[in-house]
Amino acid sequence: MTKTLAVNAGSSSMKWQMYEMPEEKVLAKGLIERIGLKDSITTVKFGDQKEERVLDIENHTQAVHILLDDLKRFHIVEEFSEITGVGHRVVAGGELFKKSTVVTPEVLQQVKELSALAPLHNPANAAGIEAFMDLLPDATSVVVFDTAFHTTMPEKAYRYPLPKKYYTENGVRKYGAHGTSHDYVSKEAAKLLGKPIEETKIITAHIGNGASITAVKAGKSVDTSMGFTPLAGVMMGTRTGEMDPSVFPYLIANDSELKDAQDVVDMMNKKSGLLGVSGISSDMREIIDAKDTNADAKLAFEMYVDRIQKFIGQYLAVLNGADALVFTAGVGENSVPVREAVLAGLTWFGIEVDPAKNVFGVEGEISTPSSRVKVYVIPTDEELVIARDVEALKVK
Amino acid sequence: MTKTLAVNAGSSSMKWQMYEMPEEKVLAKGLIERIGLKDSITTVKFGDQKEERVLDIENHTQAVHILLDDLKRFHIVEEFSEITGVGHRVVAGGELFKKSTVVTPEVLQQVKELSALAPLHNPANAAGIEAFMDLLPDATSVVVFDTAFHTTMPEKAYRYPLPKKYYTENGVRKYGAHGTSHDYVSKEAAKLLGKPIEETKIITAHIGNGASITAVKAGKSVDTSMGFTPLAGVMMGTRTGEMDPSVFPYLIANDSELKDAQDVVDMMNKKSGLLGVSGISSDMREIIDAKDTNADAKLAFEMYVDRIQKFIGQYLAVLNGADALVFTAGVGENSVPVREAVLAGLTWFGIEVDPAKNVFGVEGEISTPSSRVKVYVIPTDEELVIARDVEALKVK
Repeated sequence: MTKTLAVNAGSSSMKWQMYEMPEEKVLAKGLIERIGLKDSITTVKFGDQKEERVLDIENHTQAVHILLDDLKRFHIVEEFSEITGVGHRVVAGGELFKKSTVVTPEVLQQVKELSALAPLHNPANAAGIEAFMDLLPDATSVVVFDTAFHTTMPEKAYRYPLPKKYYTENGVRKYGAHGTSHDYVSKEAAKLLGKPIEETKIITAHIGNGASITAVKAGKSVDTSMGFTPLAGVMMGTRTGEMDPSVFPYLIANDSELKDAQDVVDMMNKKSGLLGVSGISSDMREIIDAKDTNADAKLAFEMYVDRIQKFIGQYLAVLNGADALVFTAGVGENSVPVREAVLAGLTWFGIEVDPAKNVFGVEGEISTPSSRVKVYVIPTDEELVIARDVEALKVK
Repeated sequence: MTKTLAVNAGSSSMKWQMYEMPEEKVLAKGLIERIGLKDSITTVKFGDQKEERVLDIENHTQAVHILLDDLKRFHIVEEFSEITGVGHRVVAGGELFKKSTVVTPEVLQQVKELSALAPLHNPANAAGIEAFMDLLPDATSVVVFDTAFHTTMPEKAYRYPLPKKYYTENGVRKYGAHGTSHDYVSKEAAKLLGKPIEETKIITAHIGNGASITAVKAGKSVDTSMGFTPLAGVMMGTRTGEMDPSVFPYLIANDSELKDAQDVVDMMNKKSGLLGVSGISSDMREIIDAKDTNADAKLAFEMYVDRIQKFIGQYLAVLNGADALVFTAGVGENSVPVREAVLAGLTWFGIEVDPAKNVFGVEGEISTPSSRVKVYVIPTDEELVIARDVEALKVK
C-alpha cells in the first residue's frame, strides 16, 4: 500500500487528490485557489470533513508547503515518506510525449520549452512539479499529458491545410486535449460493450465548460475536435470552437476594442460560446432555465446542440460507424436536456435512446437494447488515470 | 423567342453565355480575361467556331463594348434589341436579397454597399451591371446572388458562437456561396429520385477549385460549409477551410512575412489547401498524378478526402439522414479517385457505390439499387439558373 497524489496545477490554482494505491481509494482531495493573489483559499475534503481557509499564498512552493502541512494535520499521512508518487497533469506535451513519463531534469526542461504551445498552462504545470520535487525529493514524479492520448492520430487528421512549413518549422498542427478523459471513458465503454478494446470504435463526448469530442478506434485516438489549442472544435461555455478564419481582419477593422489577432483570440476564448450568444451565462444550467423565456438563451442552446451533433456525425464518418457514443464531464454527465436534444436528431443512424434511462444521475447505458450505437453516460476520472500512471511508473 | 445573356464578372474578367429562351439553348459563350491589364484576352465560342484575340481592354465598359461587337460580328444577334435580358451573378447578397431581383438604381446601390462582405467581388459585379445597363438600356437586368439560396438557413446554422453584437451590428454570420449551383443540382437530384422536392433530403457537394457542401431539406438550404466568406468549410485548391482560430496570433508572432490578420487570411486563401500541403499544385489532377511517388501529395489527397467525408457526416446528422448525395463542379464531376475515396469510407451509412457506374464522364446515379443513400453525379449549370431567373423576371 502506497500513497499517490494527483496534481493539476493552473497559473493561480492547484487541484489535488490523494489516493491509496493500488486500491485506487480516494483518501482526500483539495483545491488551492488565488495563488499569488491576496486572500488565497485552500479547501480540503477528507471523509465527511471539509475545511476552507483564507490565507495569503505567494507562490506554488508555498502552496505545496501548506498542502503537505494539511495532510499531516488531518492525519492523511503521518510521514511525508508515505507519499511515494506524485502525478502532474501537463496540458501540452507536443509531439515529444506520447505517454506519461517519469520526471527528470531533462523532462522538466522539455515541459518548459513546450510552453510556446500552452503559454498559460505549461509554466504553471512546471512550477507545480518543481515545488513538489523540492519538498518530496524521494517520491516518483510523473507527468501525465493532456495531449498524449491524441499522438496516435494519423497525419491526415492532425495536419492543417496550411503551407507545410508551418508544421515542420513551427509545430502548427492539431494536438487535442482532455486526453486522459477520452482514454479513461473509452476504456470503460469497451468494458460495457463486453468487447476487447482492439475491436471497438467509440466516440467520446467530453462536454464540460471546455468540451472536446474524440473518435477512438481500437483504443486509440484517430481524431479529436480540439486543435492547435483548446479553442477549436465544438461551441463551449465561453469559447467559439471552429470558425471561418476570415472574420479576424473584419472584426479588427470593425471593433475598435479589438486591436490585433490576439485580442480576437482572447474574445473568442473568454466572451464567446454560450455566454456570447445568450448574453447571460456560460453555464448550461442557467441557459436551460432561461431558454423558454429568452430567445438568445434558446438560440445558444440550439447552437450548442447543433455543434455536438455535427461532430458526432463527422466522427461516425471518420470511423465509418461506431459501437458506442459516450457522454462525460459536467454537461455530458448531468444535462439530460442536452443529451436528449443531441440524440433526438440522430435517429437515422439507428441511435435509440431509452427515455426511462436517460435521467439525472444515471451511469451506464441510456440506449435501447436494439440501438445500433450504444449510448453511455460515464463519469470521467482524470485524477484516477493520473494516479494509475504514477503507480505503473513508480520505482518500487 | 428571346435572347438572354448570363454574365459572371470578376475584378479582371468577364465570363458570359448567351441563351435562346425559353428554349434554354446555348447560342454562344465567351470569356474576357485581364481586363485593366495589358494583353487582355477575349475568347468566343460559337457553334464549332472558337476565336481568341489579344487586345488591351481598359475597363468593364470597354469589355462589354467588345463583347457586344463580337455578338454582331458572329451574327449571334443582328440587333442589340434582340437581347431582352441580362443576368448578373453577384457574390454577396447579404441578408437583403433572398432571391434574384430586377436591377433598379436602388438595387445597384445596395449591391455596392454589400461590398464590405465581398470586397473583391461585389465592386466588379457592380461594374459589370453598370456597363451593360449603359449599353443595353432596354434589356431587363437581373442580379442573381450566390448567397440567396442559403438565406433559408435556420439561425442556429448561420450564427457564429460569437458575442451577439458582431451579428446585429456588423453582420458577421454564415452567408454561404455557390447558391445557384446547390439550388440547381438539388432540384435535378429530386427529379432523379422521382419525388416531390418537398419530401427530399439531399446533400450537395460542389467540389471545384472552390468547394462547398450544403444540406438541402425540402429544396431549401438548411446548412452549408462556406461561411462569412468562401474561406470556410472543406479544404480547397488553395484555401484552408475551417481552422482553429488561435493559429492567427501564433503565426503572426512566428512568421515575419505575416504582419497582421489580413496577411494570414491572404495566405489561407491563396497559399494553403492542396497547394500548401503538397507544395506542388492546387489542381487535384496533378495531386493524383503525383501521389504515388510524393508523400506530400498523398497527404494532401488524404486530407482533402477526409474533410469532404467529415462534412457529409455532419450534414447526415444535420438532416438526420439523406435520400441523395450529389457530386458536382470540376472535381466532383470529373475525379473518379476522389469520389471513390470519399465513398469507400461511408459504407456504414448504407452508401453503396457501383464501381461500373463510377467512371469518368458519368452523369446520373453511381450508387447500387440497394444503396440507402442514392449517389449522383450531376453537372452543374450556374449560367442556366441565371438565364432562367432572368426569363422569369423579364418585363414581357
